[in-house]
Amino acid sequence: MRRLKAPEVVIRRLALYLRILQQIEDQEGSPYLSSKELGERAGVNSAQVRKDLALFGEFGKQGVGYEIAFLRQELKSILNVDRTLNVGLVGVGELGTALLRYIFRRFDGDPHYPFRLVAGFDADDNKIGREIEDGVVIHHVDEIGEKVKELDIKMFVITVPANAAQGVVDDCVEAGIKGILNFAPTKIFVPPHVRLHHSDVSLELQQLAYYLYES
Amino acid sequence: MRRLKAPEVVIRRLALYLRILQQIEDQEGSPYLSSKELGERAGVNSAQVRKDLALFGEFGKQGVGYEIAFLRQELKSILNVDRTLNVGLVGVGELGTALLRYIFRRFDGDPHYPFRLVAGFDADDNKIGREIEDGVVIHHVDEIGEKVKELDIKMFVITVPANAAQGVVDDCVEAGIKGILNFAPTKIFVPPHVRLHHSDVSLELQQLAYYLYES
Repeated sequence: MRRLKAPEVVIRRLALYLRILQQIEDQEGSPYLSSKELGERAGVNSAQVRKDLALFGEFGKQGVGYEIAFLRQELKSILNVDRTLNVGLVGVGELGTALLRYIFRRFDGDPHYPFRLVAGFDADDNKIGREIEDGVVIHHVDEIGEKVKELDIKMFVITVPANAAQGVVDDCVEAGIKGILNFAPTKIFVPPHVRLHHSDVSLELQQLAYYLYES
Repeated sequence: MRRLKAPEVVIRRLALYLRILQQIEDQEGSPYLSSKELGERAGVNSAQVRKDLALFGEFGKQGVGYEIAFLRQELKSILNVDRTLNVGLVGVGELGTALLRYIFRRFDGDPHYPFRLVAGFDADDNKIGREIEDGVVIHHVDEIGEKVKELDIKMFVITVPANAAQGVVDDCVEAGIKGILNFAPTKIFVPPHVRLHHSDVSLELQQLAYYLYES
C-alpha cells in the first residue's frame, strides 16, 4: 500500500466511498460495483472515482468493476479504520453529550465502526468521577496526558468554550495526540504533524448564506 | 459589488476573516489591520488574504492596510449576513436541541449575529405545539412549506435520522429554500441551485484517522 500525501478532498471522498460500500454490503446483492455506480451514490463522476482510487493502487478490474468486500477492506486499511481507535471527549456539556451519543451510541453493535469513546474530560469538579455512560468516566482536564497513555487514546473531540480550546488542544498535542476534531468556535493552532479539523456550525451557516441570493 | 462564483474555500476563509474582524472590533484598538496580521490570525499568508479579497474589490490601502470597520461591513454584505436570516430546524431530538442552543443562545445579544431560529419541525406528534424556547414553536414536518412562507425562513438545519433526511430536504427545496446544513449521516441530493453542506461527525473522524499514522 502506498502511503502518500493525498489531497484532503480525496481523503474526504474515500471516507464517503467506504460508507457507501458498507451500506451496500449490508444490503447484500452483487459482489461487484462499477465506478459509475459508486460515483452516482457519492455524487461524483466515474472518472473521479477511478482517479481517487488509482492514487492508492489497482483495485478494480476492467469490465467487472470493484469487488465490494475487497475494496471495502482496502479503504478501511488506507483510512486506518481497520482497527479500533480510542477517542476522548473534552468538554462534557450539553453539546458534547449530545454529540457523543450521536457519534457513538448509534453505532452500537456495528462491526464496521472503529471509534470507541473511552473517556470524558471536564474542568467542572462536579462532573469529575461521574460516568458519561457505562464505563466511560469523566476525568479532570489536568489528567489528559496521563489518561492518553493509560487508555491508549488516539483522537480527541473538543467541545469546550472558545476561550478554553487552545489550552486543551495544547494538552492533547503534548500528550502525543495527532488527530483532533474541534467544535469550539475559535481558531486554534497546532504543530504541522497534528491534524485538526474544525466543525464550526455558525461558520457553516455564514458560508451557506453567501449562496442564498445567487441568481 | 461584484457577485461571482468564488471558490468554496475562499468563501470559507471570508467567513473566518469576518469572525476575526468582529473579535478585533470587540477588543478595540487601531482602526487598521494589515493583510499580514489578518493572515496570521486566520492561519494563512498575507498574499492569500489579499488574493481572496481582491476577488471582490479594493478594500485595502497600500502601506496602511484594511480599515477594520469598513472591511467588516463589506464582508458582511458579501456573505449576506448584513441582515437577519431566519432559520428552521428539522428534527428536534437531543442533537438538534443541543445544536440550536449552541448556535443560537450563545449569540444572544450579539449585534453581529445574523441567524435567528424561528421554528422547529418534527414528525413526533408528542412534540408538536411545544416550544423549543420562548416563542419558537415545534410544528409538524408536513407544515414546512406553509411555515417557510409565513415565517420567511431562509435556511434549514437538518438533524433527522438518515432515512428521513432526503424526504425532509425535498420538502425544504420545494418550499424554495436554497441553503441547508445537514447533520444526517447520509448522502442527500439537491438541485444545482440549492446549496447543501454536510456536517458529518463520523465522516470527519474517519478522515482524521487517515492522518494518525503518517510519519
